[in-house]
Amino acid sequence: MNFASDTTAPAHPNVLQAVLDANDGSAPSYGADLWTDKARQALGTIFETDDIAITFVNSGTAANALALSILCPPDGAILCHENAHINCDERGAPEFYTHGGKLHFLSGAHDLITIRAMAPVLEKMDRHFVHETPVDVLSLSQLSEAGTAYTQEDIKALCALAHKANMHTHMDGARLANALVSTGSSPADMTWRAGVDVLSFGFTKNGAMGAEAIILFGEQAKRLGALEARRKRGGHMPPKQRFVAAQVLAMLQGDLWLSLARQANDAAQALAKGFVEAGAVLQHPVQGNEVFVCLKDGQATALRNAGAQFYDGPDGSARFVTCWNTTSADVQAAVKVLS
Amino acid sequence: MNFASDTTAPAHPNVLQAVLDANDGSAPSYGADLWTDKARQALGTIFETDDIAITFVNSGTAANALALSILCPPDGAILCHENAHINCDERGAPEFYTHGGKLHFLSGAHDLITIRAMAPVLEKMDRHFVHETPVDVLSLSQLSEAGTAYTQEDIKALCALAHKANMHTHMDGARLANALVSTGSSPADMTWRAGVDVLSFGFTKNGAMGAEAIILFGEQAKRLGALEARRKRGGHMPPKQRFVAAQVLAMLQGDLWLSLARQANDAAQALAKGFVEAGAVLQHPVQGNEVFVCLKDGQATALRNAGAQFYDGPDGSARFVTCWNTTSADVQAAVKVLS
Amino acid sequence: MNFASDTTAPAHPNVLQAVLDANDGSAPSYGADLWTDKARQALGTIFETDDIAITFVNSGTAANALALSILCPPDGAILCHENAHINCDERGAPEFYTHGGKLHFLSGAHDLITIRAMAPVLEKMDRHFVHETPVDVLSLSQLSEAGTAYTQEDIKALCALAHKANMHTHMDGARLANALVSTGSSPADMTWRAGVDVLSFGFTKNGAMGAEAIILFGEQAKRLGALEARRKRGGHMPPKQRFVAAQVLAMLQGDLWLSLARQANDAAQALAKGFVEAGAVLQHPVQGNEVFVCLKDGQATALRNAGAQFYDGPDGSARFVTCWNTTSADVQAAVKVLS
Amino acid sequence: MNFASDTTAPAHPNVLQAVLDANDGSAPSYGADLWTDKARQALGTIFETDDIAITFVNSGTAANALALSILCPPDGAILCHENAHINCDERGAPEFYTHGGKLHFLSGAHDLITIRAMAPVLEKMDRHFVHETPVDVLSLSQLSEAGTAYTQEDIKALCALAHKANMHTHMDGARLANALVSTGSSPADMTWRAGVDVLSFGFTKNGAMGAEAIILFGEQAKRLGALEARRKRGGHMPPKQRFVAAQVLAMLQGDLWLSLARQANDAAQALAKGFVEAGAVLQHPVQGNEVFVCLKDGQATALRNAGAQFYDGPDGSARFVTCWNTTSADVQAAVKVLS
Repeated sequence: MNFASDTTAPAHPNVLQAVLDANDGSAPSYGADLWTDKARQALGTIFETDDIAITFVNSGTAANALALSILCPPDGAILCHENAHINCDERGAPEFYTHGGKLHFLSGAHDLITIRAMAPVLEKMDRHFVHETPVDVLSLSQLSEAGTAYTQEDIKALCALAHKANMHTHMDGARLANALVSTGSSPADMTWRAGVDVLSFGFTKNGAMGAEAIILFGEQAKRLGALEARRKRGGHMPPKQRFVAAQVLAMLQGDLWLSLARQANDAAQALAKGFVEAGAVLQHPVQGNEVFVCLKDGQATALRNAGAQFYDGPDGSARFVTCWNTTSADVQAAVKVLS
Repeated sequence: MNFASDTTAPAHPNVLQAVLDANDGSAPSYGADLWTDKARQALGTIFETDDIAITFVNSGTAANALALSILCPPDGAILCHENAHINCDERGAPEFYTHGGKLHFLSGAHDLITIRAMAPVLEKMDRHFVHETPVDVLSLSQLSEAGTAYTQEDIKALCALAHKANMHTHMDGARLANALVSTGSSPADMTWRAGVDVLSFGFTKNGAMGAEAIILFGEQAKRLGALEARRKRGGHMPPKQRFVAAQVLAMLQGDLWLSLARQANDAAQALAKGFVEAGAVLQHPVQGNEVFVCLKDGQATALRNAGAQFYDGPDGSARFVTCWNTTSADVQAAVKVLS
Repeated sequence: MNFASDTTAPAHPNVLQAVLDANDGSAPSYGADLWTDKARQALGTIFETDDIAITFVNSGTAANALALSILCPPDGAILCHENAHINCDERGAPEFYTHGGKLHFLSGAHDLITIRAMAPVLEKMDRHFVHETPVDVLSLSQLSEAGTAYTQEDIKALCALAHKANMHTHMDGARLANALVSTGSSPADMTWRAGVDVLSFGFTKNGAMGAEAIILFGEQAKRLGALEARRKRGGHMPPKQRFVAAQVLAMLQGDLWLSLARQANDAAQALAKGFVEAGAVLQHPVQGNEVFVCLKDGQATALRNAGAQFYDGPDGSARFVTCWNTTSADVQAAVKVLS
Repeated sequence: MNFASDTTAPAHPNVLQAVLDANDGSAPSYGADLWTDKARQALGTIFETDDIAITFVNSGTAANALALSILCPPDGAILCHENAHINCDERGAPEFYTHGGKLHFLSGAHDLITIRAMAPVLEKMDRHFVHETPVDVLSLSQLSEAGTAYTQEDIKALCALAHKANMHTHMDGARLANALVSTGSSPADMTWRAGVDVLSFGFTKNGAMGAEAIILFGEQAKRLGALEARRKRGGHMPPKQRFVAAQVLAMLQGDLWLSLARQANDAAQALAKGFVEAGAVLQHPVQGNEVFVCLKDGQATALRNAGAQFYDGPDGSARFVTCWNTTSADVQAAVKVLS
């Protein structure tokens, strides 16, 4: 009954097999290897475009911070939800990589940014007023920190508003797979076709050992050189990069990444259904692999006594994260405690 | 005949087996796992001290930059050889992680720093003269960029001079294993007993997929909290850290790390011997797994035509790097071309 | 009728005379001059302590950012009001000088921080949780951005709470003089005796050409060397510093600084009284030299047509700032328009 | 006999009078004042171009660091002489303002950069090799730190080489006036017509209290917005900027700046002549207001006993700096000691 985090899950066997297979004699280092090339091609196919540039890193924090560093100047700001991972859980990595760029916060139910919240900020902003920091980037988390998903229409509207204000757009896609499965959108429709300029595309939480892609779409593809320089400078250019790229390839092979996300999402739905039937109240809609539930007195203790691992969400509810390896038995055991 | 770099070598099978073994169900993330604990203990044993604190990252650039970031303030400087990896090959990572700290360069034959070169800099330095940047850290590369090794006596003398000037000391130990094998020193004698405060201890070039330790000795062990904060902030805290720690454990198991370094060093000696017998002149003493040789007209082309991969060293010689998997056949084939 | 800002006011004639007098032949540069010494001594007298270290800069933004840079590490955060000048009006200077430190915001009526708002943040904070940025500094603005003043009891309670949480405390005293006049507190009681560790002490808005002191109290006095290094590095060590120190000396001479603040405060009281008698509603209590008033339709236009200069406050009210040279005629003319 | 530095000199009376005159009632703050406008126009006239953008700061270190910050990205480097002020005397300000940009050093007699020294660096540079930091900016000091002056032909050749390598060019013109007087070149010919993109134009050492201009020529004029943002963020946007601009206006009025530089240069020539006649050997040609002389045993002591103030130059010679207010009596007294 480990619902603590999808970062505690093991890697999928296919991922490890791919790493073993990649350990085949010598190979060019620092990304000049064949696996990196193939992973780039596979991602181009999935995103249905040639107008794309891609690099790889080991952690989601690195992916977000590097992505933001080429979009936001040191004297600029990033518009994000106040509960965004880039604000609450990365120990200031975006500020570090942007050399002191600011985060500008928006509130919003279920940790989602709305046009209503965003528009007034942009209307009030005067890029020529040197004393105030203008917002240069919109960063959306998909899934949000409340486990909710933006629809592709939401993203389209928010990105359009951002672009109209001469901002760039970033998606923290640490759980993009879960959002795609949940909404039924395609990778392309959910990202560049909806106006996303740069994507942090996560595989680690979904079944890799440690592999994330940073994807530059359209005009931003020209910034690959700048991104690579910052990646090296940040210590995020692995000498033996083939072992990172091989993980991505394994995840994409046969749409494993979507299957794994579906397993995790289904487990979350089952868990939520069981909790609700047991009389519990959900704090947020379940649109991915996270269930936020308001527990009554004693319930959290009962669950923990029964061996369940989970964290208290920042909003006072309890957070249960399901993974690709969460079993029905895990779900049933947790539900049983609350019933 | 791949003598391009030890970063092009595959991982040793034991390392991959350890990663497979670590993929055993759920495990706490971000370094709270058992493998991380065990790797710390194993390193404590090897360095024969409890007065030690350790963390892990994926790349040598990250290890160096993070190590330096807790030793050098933004308005300070790092004393290093002008050819040091931290100056020439890390795209400004030390400057990034120290927030603008300066590198102060020393010259020296075979890329080694000497007391003679270092002493005048310290004598001239006035910490109270606010206009000039004082040097706060001495950083030594072991092996040096010329493939040479400091003896433990060299290190002792240099670190003593640095400490007398109220500086801290750092060792870039990307190829520490090769230096230990070559000099016969013990890990403890070569590092903290010789006055090294913080060590970047590399496993990647020696046979891991991607694993480096940052080791804080003595007083510096108290800085682990600060280092961990910067590691997270730099995006270098892997969610599934067990896969990094497991690599280190496999390398330490049965002194595999020393065996692999010995294999590489022996190959380098054989290569150098063959080159010299063929009339070639070595540019630097061979004290690890790198051979720098002055090739005559046509020799480089002949070698490349025969399939040998190697780089031109920054000093005009040709650099041949041997690895744990370099074979006698590789060595003989290269020597034969020159004979 | 210039109520735009106290930064638009001229310098007091005494200040200029002091600058003329300081132009007396050669003098040591970069702060080694006699005027700097005397200004330090005069400030020690005013603050009634020898446990103090002082330096000087040209602008309030520099004073705040430099002060914060020695209190907040790059991976730390500063607790401040969401409307604080350091957040809204300095184009990210604190983030620049702290190398990416974060600002953590509190709400509060009349732009004042309260124990009630601050305590829960500190209770929730876990310094050992590496993913979140802990708050290391409390920064209070005196006057606040709403023109209100903390009492010395307020400051004592807030600083005590901060110190209990192992935080340092900073006061942005750009308008400290106005707060002292308004509350009747002494400089010492309002600052170090109330728990302020580092003070940005402003003279520019109060009648200097461009002169601010950064004052380190108690334990922080030991950090003068670090502050001076950062001041030089920031380009804020004036070669001919005597001309800055001479301004401070002139302001302190015969308590000119308090007289000028009193004149400005009195003008603000008169203006507020007139506005209220004319039926206007004040947005904030008037406790210094700023009047925030909610104007009805047409009133702002009428005032501007009559030649009044003032800005719209960030909260929708109109902001009128009085200066040491605001005349009764200015006040009466403005009131007359509204009557 | 104060030959310590031109930073110890007083301000010229005209400068102070201009400051007094500018203290005329209220004026818009932060550079929106008339004095700033007029100083910009006067500089446009002197540089004979409309293709120019200008801002003002208080110190030369700020001027250099801000200028470099818009020319060099954080992962780039600045090519400069190893003895350049930006390397040796600004406590890392360029590294701070560029967020960790590197300085790449060239040697050269009399602290002058030559084509011969510069060309090989550019030939070896590969902008696409991500591990090494490319050089993005050439920074020339006029006068150099050895008191020597580049001719306009030197500058033209060096800037052409830099531009060919896609670099930008910066001139640290802290003593530009002295170089212009010495070489007879016009401001335009010595700067933008010779290929200088951004100029730090110093007035402080030449007779102002504290005033420097940053001048963007040609294409770089478009970067004024970025420069202003960084100026504010650096704390270098004076609230009462009129007092800085008024100094510049006074210096330009009637070519006072050139007259003052000529006085200082003439004093230096007289001093050098006297020293040489007394048998002393000059270390560098005297091409501005600095004399570097190799003193024999006892001479330095004799001079200091006689009341002369001067510093030891970094090259072992003694440095004598003359100022606008250096008198013939000062010069004669110093020469007499050596005769």
